[in-house]
Amino acid sequence: MNDCITLAHGEGGRLYRELVEQVFLPAFDNVALNELGDSAVCPAFGDRLALTTDSFVVRPRFFPGGDIGRLAVSGTVNDLAVSGAQPLYLTCAMILEAGLPIDELRRICDSMAASARDAGVAVVTGDTKVVEKGACDGIFINTAGVGLFRREPLPQKIRPGDVILVSGSVGDHGLAVLAAREKLDFRPQLESDAAPLNGLIDALLQAVPETRALRDATRGGLTAVANEWAETSGVTVAIEETAVPVRPQVRSACQLLGLDPLHAANEGKVVAAVPERFADAALAALRKHPLGKDAAIIGRAESGPPRAVLITSIGARRILALPEGEQLPRIC
Amino acid sequence: MNDCITLAHGEGGRLYRELVEQVFLPAFDNVALNELGDSAVCPAFGDRLALTTDSFVVRPRFFPGGDIGRLAVSGTVNDLAVSGAQPLYLTCAMILEAGLPIDELRRICDSMAASARDAGVAVVTGDTKVVEKGACDGIFINTAGVGLFRREPLPQKIRPGDVILVSGSVGDHGLAVLAAREKLDFRPQLESDAAPLNGLIDALLQAVPETRALRDATRGGLTAVANEWAETSGVTVAIEETAVPVRPQVRSACQLLGLDPLHAANEGKVVAAVPERFADAALAALRKHPLGKDAAIIGRAESGPPRAVLITSIGARRILALPEGEQLPRIC
Repeated sequence: MNDCITLAHGEGGRLYRELVEQVFLPAFDNVALNELGDSAVCPAFGDRLALTTDSFVVRPRFFPGGDIGRLAVSGTVNDLAVSGAQPLYLTCAMILEAGLPIDELRRICDSMAASARDAGVAVVTGDTKVVEKGACDGIFINTAGVGLFRREPLPQKIRPGDVILVSGSVGDHGLAVLAAREKLDFRPQLESDAAPLNGLIDALLQAVPETRALRDATRGGLTAVANEWAETSGVTVAIEETAVPVRPQVRSACQLLGLDPLHAANEGKVVAAVPERFADAALAALRKHPLGKDAAIIGRAESGPPRAVLITSIGARRILALPEGEQLPRIC
Repeated sequence: MNDCITLAHGEGGRLYRELVEQVFLPAFDNVALNELGDSAVCPAFGDRLALTTDSFVVRPRFFPGGDIGRLAVSGTVNDLAVSGAQPLYLTCAMILEAGLPIDELRRICDSMAASARDAGVAVVTGDTKVVEKGACDGIFINTAGVGLFRREPLPQKIRPGDVILVSGSVGDHGLAVLAAREKLDFRPQLESDAAPLNGLIDALLQAVPETRALRDATRGGLTAVANEWAETSGVTVAIEETAVPVRPQVRSACQLLGLDPLHAANEGKVVAAVPERFADAALAALRKHPLGKDAAIIGRAESGPPRAVLITSIGARRILALPEGEQLPRIC
């Protein structure tokens, strides 16, 4: 492990895992944490709470399709929803840089509030710290979320034969933020997909309670989800390249910038694994919801070594691995 | 209201209240938030959860008596405890600046873990973001806390005749951090009092369930608590200057720096208001606990205009008001 924190430590790859395994887990060792789920499952009142936390440091603060406030609500709501919990309450803590225009803060709060209404959650408590100019970059927002498990927490365990679905096009958020940051102009415009997914996920779980695993494809995109599932479930996760929905403008932007839309971040897309016999029901449930109208079946789990593979348009299979090191910092 | 955020917006005074009243409350309007308590009281499972959040940006990160990790656990645990809830779970989100030595991060995590063990809480979920060098100052930590109300939430309502107690000497944290930041050397050394107070508070509430209100005297110190209680309860809160415990080294440091120990921050002191007939029982319960051995009765609530007053050593009464504007930024 390096001696100092690097941007790569924030990217969810090998260095991040080392940090978790060598620093955080030894220090905080406990059952709920050690599961390393999107939300911790915590006993309370003889029942189970879901708890999660996320900080948002996106640059720029405003971008087509969203802003840091919409992200801060959607990201945390989605972490609760993909673990199978109903999101209920959010906390909101802001670190503000002296000099931030109050009008921007107001716009961000209004956006958070609108997203919270979309998700049906309440922001019940907050905290504000102000640091001197130069000590933070504008505004950082933390939201922690509390949810209730109405049913058993999802097993998050995938078996050979299970079918993998995605709720719509991938890469929209990552490319929209990158374009806004670098002031690149694409037509049609790139737009973030940031949205709370609990309604969509609820519809899926009602239609297919047998759903095995859900994940929102944020940092590292679809590639990160496929690799994580392969590793934790001990299966080969095979994704069909031509089946993955990618908007034309995202595809062009990726080609121009040398990026892969499968690695790029999403903030409004859920990846689902369901037993094969429920694949059509799951697809129909997703497509019936406005946020899932472009849903698609994109692959399946196979017996085999625990890795993610991409089946290309000509039927070849290649390893689907995350690039090492720094990718796109501060996209959320 | 100013057009831009200033350091004074973070100080808990008039500008901060304007921000809350003109930006946050209009955006996030809901019953739990509008109470503006140390913790939000949230229905769940037909019972009540306590939720709170706090970000920590203290400078320097290590100081005599504590560090940012100990603060991050103590501050959030104490916010739950003073509302009468039993702290159970913490979330922990870190924003790290590229270049932070991993060894420092490890020390901070170990300190958080030790404080969590002291408090009997588990850190159940986390998040890590890394920002580029210069985009934050070393490390910012957010902890959100979940607690259970084992009894009714405290009324936080004080009546004339009630007696005010503090669990020990005031100003220790604020002066210790300031001395460490400015590299001032006082003998004996100034030491922060940062500590989780839930054990002490539990002992007090068991001895005196009739306790009316509790507050940890953080930003703005004892003065802020006295003013807040005067305003929310519509009473005069009269503090006897000579009854307030202040360590000699804190008093000297304050004289040298032109500060008032009553305004300075504490991170391990609770202020309590109890009906007069329970004052001795409350004092005894506090003093029996290691964190309350220097507890004292320091004043009382009186019928009169809603303000805090200080009764000086010669018996004169003067308004006890917080200084306007920027005090000591980044002490927590």
